[in-house]
Amino acid sequence: MTDIRALTFDVFGTVVDWRTGVAREAAAVLGPKGQALDWLAFADRWRAQYAPAMERVSRGQRPFVILDEMHWENLLELLRQERIEGLSDAEIEDLTHAWHRLDPWPDVVDGLTRLKRRFVLATLSNGNIALMVNMAKRAGLPWDVILGAEVARAYKPTPLAYDFAASALQLAPAQCLMVAAHPADLRAAAERGFRTAYVHRPHEFGAAEMPWPTDGFDYKVGNFLELADKLGA
Amino acid sequence: MTDIRALTFDVFGTVVDWRTGVAREAAAVLGPKGQALDWLAFADRWRAQYAPAMERVSRGQRPFVILDEMHWENLLELLRQERIEGLSDAEIEDLTHAWHRLDPWPDVVDGLTRLKRRFVLATLSNGNIALMVNMAKRAGLPWDVILGAEVARAYKPTPLAYDFAASALQLAPAQCLMVAAHPADLRAAAERGFRTAYVHRPHEFGAAEMPWPTDGFDYKVGNFLELADKLGA
Repeated sequence: MTDIRALTFDVFGTVVDWRTGVAREAAAVLGPKGQALDWLAFADRWRAQYAPAMERVSRGQRPFVILDEMHWENLLELLRQERIEGLSDAEIEDLTHAWHRLDPWPDVVDGLTRLKRRFVLATLSNGNIALMVNMAKRAGLPWDVILGAEVARAYKPTPLAYDFAASALQLAPAQCLMVAAHPADLRAAAERGFRTAYVHRPHEFGAAEMPWPTDGFDYKVGNFLELADKLGA
Repeated sequence: MTDIRALTFDVFGTVVDWRTGVAREAAAVLGPKGQALDWLAFADRWRAQYAPAMERVSRGQRPFVILDEMHWENLLELLRQERIEGLSDAEIEDLTHAWHRLDPWPDVVDGLTRLKRRFVLATLSNGNIALMVNMAKRAGLPWDVILGAEVARAYKPTPLAYDFAASALQLAPAQCLMVAAHPADLRAAAERGFRTAYVHRPHEFGAAEMPWPTDGFDYKVGNFLELADKLGA
């Protein structure tokens, strides 16, 4: 494990708490418009459209579009379902950018700051470049480089998303450690030769505690500080 | 000028002193092999092949390749011209990566650190992603995002190189300030709607002092600290 040079990070759920952040932002935009929804459920329903929308791109059913574009389309559909009307284009765009304004889990900034001293820290998220940049500026995430879907023109878990990241860094896949709270992402990275670190985020989807996966990942940790400990950073 | 959101930087010559850096690295690799060249002249000759090589890509005479690949090809040609033989593939690759190991001008790290508090700092260099990442890690350059040729699949000064950067940041071109020591780069950026900041690096090409350009750029400064002063950062 001494040859790891770069850590590639999943972001939504692994680095930031998208659920409470999107709920907070939805309440801030829609509350003043007279809406009184279950904002966490609103966040969940918005998020639920994310995987099918990406799969349409990954299967070649539509050309590559950035995640902001899909978030916008999915929001329009969700607003229709919820019978929420009367938002201006600017308000809909502002709400779409809720995903740019998410808070990191409490261990993240300290953990990344330690890890950055020893490793290249790259995002390997399906989020687009501006989303990652705006989120990082707001939250103080010290990335060395923004990689991921918009740079690779490919969404995880397609092989190209991982291959492009290692290639752009001029590293062998085994020199890259994929860090994610989602076993499927880690399994897809492992198939491309990446090492894997599972980070347990038991409340990503709410109060009900998620179990630890049984997969044999290279590391399994409770947060980024534990990961820094294990990697000697 | 209050609406500037991102600063996009040329790197070779503007941020780092490529000439003395490449000369130092060439001496370190080739000196122990019994070579005793004028190392600064070696750096100049290597650099002189850079523009024509990029133009072959920009004119569509060959598919996009990253700058490291062109540096490697141009080095092979230069070694042939200089009748330098007996280098291993690993030594040639190591010397190719001289361009990853360049030092910033003395004002750069302090200037960028100030500018980063107020603006998104993006590379908009013809250097490839790994080159920019390795250089930044070694020199402590606090970029928010690596953009440029490899991300856009287009070399400056083609319009797409600039257009892609503004688009990836979801900014209007006029919200982007191109920072460069080279008037031609700034003029090309201005044609795409960018604002422009000329930074005077009079010794980029050696001891003979370069004159200040007569162009009417938005800013003309002697270093990054002056730029931070002018931008209120």
